[in-house]
Amino acid sequence: MAAFITFEGPEGSGKTTVLQQVSERLAKEFEVLKTREPGGVPAAEQIREILLEGEAVDDRTEALLFAASRREHLVEKVLPALKAGKIVLCDRYIDSSLAYQGFARGIGVDEVRAINEFAINGLYPDLTIYLDITAETGRQRIESNARNMNRLDHESIAFHQRVIKGYKDLIAQEPNRFKVIDANQELETVVEATYSAIKEFLNKQ
Amino acid sequence: MAAFITFEGPEGSGKTTVLQQVSERLAKEFEVLKTREPGGVPAAEQIREILLEGEAVDDRTEALLFAASRREHLVEKVLPALKAGKIVLCDRYIDSSLAYQGFARGIGVDEVRAINEFAINGLYPDLTIYLDITAETGRQRIESNARNMNRLDHESIAFHQRVIKGYKDLIAQEPNRFKVIDANQELETVVEATYSAIKEFLNKQ
Repeated sequence: MAAFITFEGPEGSGKTTVLQQVSERLAKEFEVLKTREPGGVPAAEQIREILLEGEAVDDRTEALLFAASRREHLVEKVLPALKAGKIVLCDRYIDSSLAYQGFARGIGVDEVRAINEFAINGLYPDLTIYLDITAETGRQRIESNARNMNRLDHESIAFHQRVIKGYKDLIAQEPNRFKVIDANQELETVVEATYSAIKEFLNKQ
Repeated sequence: MAAFITFEGPEGSGKTTVLQQVSERLAKEFEVLKTREPGGVPAAEQIREILLEGEAVDDRTEALLFAASRREHLVEKVLPALKAGKIVLCDRYIDSSLAYQGFARGIGVDEVRAINEFAINGLYPDLTIYLDITAETGRQRIESNARNMNRLDHESIAFHQRVIKGYKDLIAQEPNRFKVIDANQELETVVEATYSAIKEFLNKQ
């Protein structure tokens, strides 16, 4: 039973930890691929290197490069796993570009959607888990984790609020694709709620 | 007097030679920038390297990378020259992607246009010179030039005919932007006709 499930949320939502724990539980019952872009796909890694190592590029160039990296990861890693009948759990996908670049950075959601729809060519996720956390709680979580402090320094709380507003607009447009999980709760509770939501979705297939 | 003028045409149309000679004549009267993507712009060069040096990527990834390289070249090189009041002559631009990737490779002209309109963000050329040559004459010209033989080996005459059909559709949609020059003539005649067309355009501005 193949399914393409993406995880979305603002910084500090606990997305990576929740994804890891849910993946371990699902792997007891299903063939699971846990991944994130660029995900070790050589061309996708090379594309991301330009963003990380080179001089700063224009916002639209950045969005095109993310879309190109997404395409390679999709074609080389996600599609073969789905074809093999696996449950694919992917940390961030098209909605991150729409919320961050399209909405929060101000390029425009419709414009960023156009290049990402070109990249995914119809492959929207079957289910998207949104870990719902307030900008304030997200900030507290990041501050308690020294690893992420650099990232925090670069963006204001107002930016994180715009990211959250961007996500909320997307959820309002596609309420059936998104499953919103209250991520202000204890980690264990969030993992349980996410696992249950995915199981319920898979049982309906 | 700033103007953004692009040169388009299939392989063997003499585009590069005509552009060079017309550029030299125009430079006697105007400030001219002659360029082509990626045009020495560091990030654009890095993006193109992925296409040239890495493993073959998916057709859509390739189109996204060309669009990203186009964006950087535009922002870093074309826009500053236009702002400085120069005549910019650019060897290939959006129409090449539409004719080659969109039409001839079969991705779809509207889809390739969407990502390229994101990249150019409204900056269509003021004038586009189309060097009009038959696929057969183009082939003869390429065969007489050993430098280009490798490229010829990779594509059939049918592919070049599709490229030409793609261009002809674009010209029919925007007859005012394109100036079609009969490139089956002698080089000297083609250069003269192209130079006259550009002068006529500039005189109307």
